[in-house]
Amino acid sequence: MTMFDPSDHSHRRYNPLTGQWVLVSPHRAKRPWQGQQESPDRSARPSHDPQCYLCAGNLRVTGERNPDYLHTFVFTNDFAAMMADTPEATPPTDDLFQIQSARGTSRVICFSPDHSLSLPELSLPAIGQVIQTWISETKELAQTYPGIQIFENKGAMMGCSNPHPHGQIWATSYIPSEVHQEDLHQRAYFNQHQRPLLLDYAQREAASGERVVVQTAHWLAVVPFWATWPFEILLLPRFAVQRITQLDATQQADLALALKKLTSRYDNLFECSFPYSMGWHGAPFDGRSTEGWQLHAHFYPPLLRSASVRKFMVGFEMLAEAQRDLTPEQAADRLRAVSDLHYRESST
Amino acid sequence: MTMFDPSDHSHRRYNPLTGQWVLVSPHRAKRPWQGQQESPDRSARPSHDPQCYLCAGNLRVTGERNPDYLHTFVFTNDFAAMMADTPEATPPTDDLFQIQSARGTSRVICFSPDHSLSLPELSLPAIGQVIQTWISETKELAQTYPGIQIFENKGAMMGCSNPHPHGQIWATSYIPSEVHQEDLHQRAYFNQHQRPLLLDYAQREAASGERVVVQTAHWLAVVPFWATWPFEILLLPRFAVQRITQLDATQQADLALALKKLTSRYDNLFECSFPYSMGWHGAPFDGRSTEGWQLHAHFYPPLLRSASVRKFMVGFEMLAEAQRDLTPEQAADRLRAVSDLHYRESST
Ligand SMILES: O=P(O)(O)O[C@H]1O[C@H](CO)[C@@H](O)[C@H](O)[C@H]1O
Ligand SMILES: O=P(O)(O)O[C@H]1O[C@H](CO)[C@@H](O)[C@H](O)[C@H]1O
Repeated sequence: MTMFDPSDHSHRRYNPLTGQWVLVSPHRAKRPWQGQQESPDRSARPSHDPQCYLCAGNLRVTGERNPDYLHTFVFTNDFAAMMADTPEATPPTDDLFQIQSARGTSRVICFSPDHSLSLPELSLPAIGQVIQTWISETKELAQTYPGIQIFENKGAMMGCSNPHPHGQIWATSYIPSEVHQEDLHQRAYFNQHQRPLLLDYAQREAASGERVVVQTAHWLAVVPFWATWPFEILLLPRFAVQRITQLDATQQADLALALKKLTSRYDNLFECSFPYSMGWHGAPFDGRSTEGWQLHAHFYPPLLRSASVRKFMVGFEMLAEAQRDLTPEQAADRLRAVSDLHYRESST
Repeated sequence: MTMFDPSDHSHRRYNPLTGQWVLVSPHRAKRPWQGQQESPDRSARPSHDPQCYLCAGNLRVTGERNPDYLHTFVFTNDFAAMMADTPEATPPTDDLFQIQSARGTSRVICFSPDHSLSLPELSLPAIGQVIQTWISETKELAQTYPGIQIFENKGAMMGCSNPHPHGQIWATSYIPSEVHQEDLHQRAYFNQHQRPLLLDYAQREAASGERVVVQTAHWLAVVPFWATWPFEILLLPRFAVQRITQLDATQQADLALALKKLTSRYDNLFECSFPYSMGWHGAPFDGRSTEGWQLHAHFYPPLLRSASVRKFMVGFEMLAEAQRDLTPEQAADRLRAVSDLHYRESST
C-alpha cells in the first residue's frame, strides 16, 4: 500500500488564523498553459515623471500641488472609499437585509520621491522612513478609528495604476471581516494555550526551517504551511508584539532589513518587479484587551509559473475553496534558491 | 442633520449565506482609471477549430481522440487537481499544522460541438442538454463523493484557456470551505425560522423587484443585496428544491430560459462575451439531512466600468474585506436596461 506523501499527493491544509482550508495539488503546475499572458514590469523609469501625480512638486487631480518631499509623503485619497462624517444607519430589524453605515478615511503613502524605485531598491534608512510613517499614521488614526489597514498594491496586475512607490492606509469605524476572523482565532488559541498563536508558530517554523525564506535577528518570513497564493509570505516578529506602534528602534531597523531581503528575493525569482498586495495586521484599537494578538504582515503575490503567467483564483476557488498548484515547501525552496541581493543592485 | 442614504453613503452589508460583510462605496466608480486595461472578447470564431482540443473529432494532449459528439461531451480532466486513490493521511495531532488527504476527480463538460458559440448563443434545447448533463454527472459522482462542484470559468480574464464553450465538475471527498459556510448558515436560519433562507429571500426579492434582473415562471436572478462583484448574480429557484438532481422537466426547461436571458443581458451590457466564474451550490451528498438547503447558482463576473476595465479584489479586499464601487441596486438597474435578447442574435 502506498503511504501518504504531502509532496506528492493532493491534500488540504488548515489556516488556524482564519479557519479556512486550502486544497494543495502538488503536481498541477506541470499542466500546459495556453491561457492569458501578463505583461511583466521590467521597465526602467525616470526618477521624476512630470505626468505622475505622486511625484514631488506635481499637481494632483484636485488641483493641489505635492510638496517637495524628501522621504515619505502622506495625503488623503482624492477618491476615498469612506468618509469621516457618514450618518448612522437605523439598526436593521431584518436578518436577510442587514446594513450598517461605514465611516473612515483613506490615505496614500508615497514611499519615496524617486519615481524609479520600488521597496527592495530603497536604501535601508529609506525603508526605515516608510516603517516610521506606517507607525505615526497608525498612532494618529487610532485615536479615531478601531480598524487600521496598512497595505500596498504593487503592479498593474494588482490593480495598481501608478508605478510610483506607494501604499495606502484605510481607517474604519468597524473591524473588517478578515481581521475579525483572525481576532476570533487568535483569542481562542490563547485561551487554550496561554500563548499567542503566531508566536508559537514562528518558533516552530524557525526550528524546522522548511518554509523559511528570510530570517533576521528579530523577524522571520515564511511561506505559511496554509499558504493559498503560490509564493505567499507571512512576515512574523520573533518576539511578542501586538501592534506596529510598539516596535522599538532596533526592531524597526531589523524589519527594514527583512523587508529589503524578502522583496529582493521576490524580484529576483522571475527578474521582474514582482507584483503583490501586502498589508499589516495587528490588534484592533477597539478598547478590548490585545490578548492573543501578534503583529504580522501578509504578502499575496499572484505570479505562478513565470513573470507572465499568474495563478487565477477562479471557478473552484471562488465557489468551493482556495487551491494551489505547488506545495508551500516547494515555493520556499525556490525563493531560497535566489539571492537576497536585488538583481538590479547587484548587477551594477 | 443628513439622513443616512444607502445609494449615497458608504456602508456595509451582511451576507447571511457566508457570514461575511462587504463594504459598499456608492460613488467610487466615478474616480478616473489609469490602470490595467483588459482585452475584451469580441472575436467571431469558426464553428470548428482544428487546433482546439475540445472540438469534436480532435486529438487531446493524452493522445485520445474526442468523439463526434452532437450535444455535450464529458471527459476526465487530463490534469486533474485530485485523484480517486490518494492514500489517507495520518490524522494530525498538532493544531498549527493540520493536514488531511483529499480525494476526488475533475471532469470537463463541453457544452456544444460548436466552437463559435457561448452559453447565451446556444438554443434553448441545447442549454437544456447542458442542464441534463449537469444533472446526470451529479447523480453519478454523488455515489462516490459528498462534494460536487459544477462550475464554468468563462473568458481569458477568468483563467479560461480555451474559448470553446465548456465548464467543469470537481467532485471531492470532503465538503469545501465555502459550501461548509453556506451549510452552517442555512441550517442555523432554518432552525430559527423553519423555512429555507434562500426561499424566504427569493420571495422578498421577487416582491420588491429592486434587485431583480431576470424573472421566469420558476426562476429568479437577482444582484444579491450583499453582492461583492460589481455585476454578481444569485440565480434562485422560486420553489423549494435542495439539489440540481431534483429538477423536473418543466423546471429544467424554464431554467434554460432563465440562463439564456441572464447571460444575454451580461453580453449586452458591454457588447462583449462577458467573462465570469459561475457555479452551482446544493445540499452536499454527505448522508446528513438536507434541511435548510436551497439549490442556487452564483455568477461572479469581474468587469466594472467597461469591457476593458475590471474590478480588482486586491489590497483592502484581500486583507480586510470585499469592497464594491456601485450599489447592487445600481448594478441591477443597468442589467435591466439592456435587452434580454443577445446582441449577436438580435442584430441578424
Ligand atoms: O482547470 P483549468 O481550466 O485549466 O484552470 C482554471 O480553473 C481552475 C479551477 O477553477 C483553477 O484552479 C485555475 O487556476 C484556472 O486557471
Ligand atoms: O485605491 P486604488 O489604488 O485606486 O484602487 C486599488 O486598490 C483598492 C484598495 O485595495 C481596490 O479597492 C481597487 O479595486 C484597486 O484598483
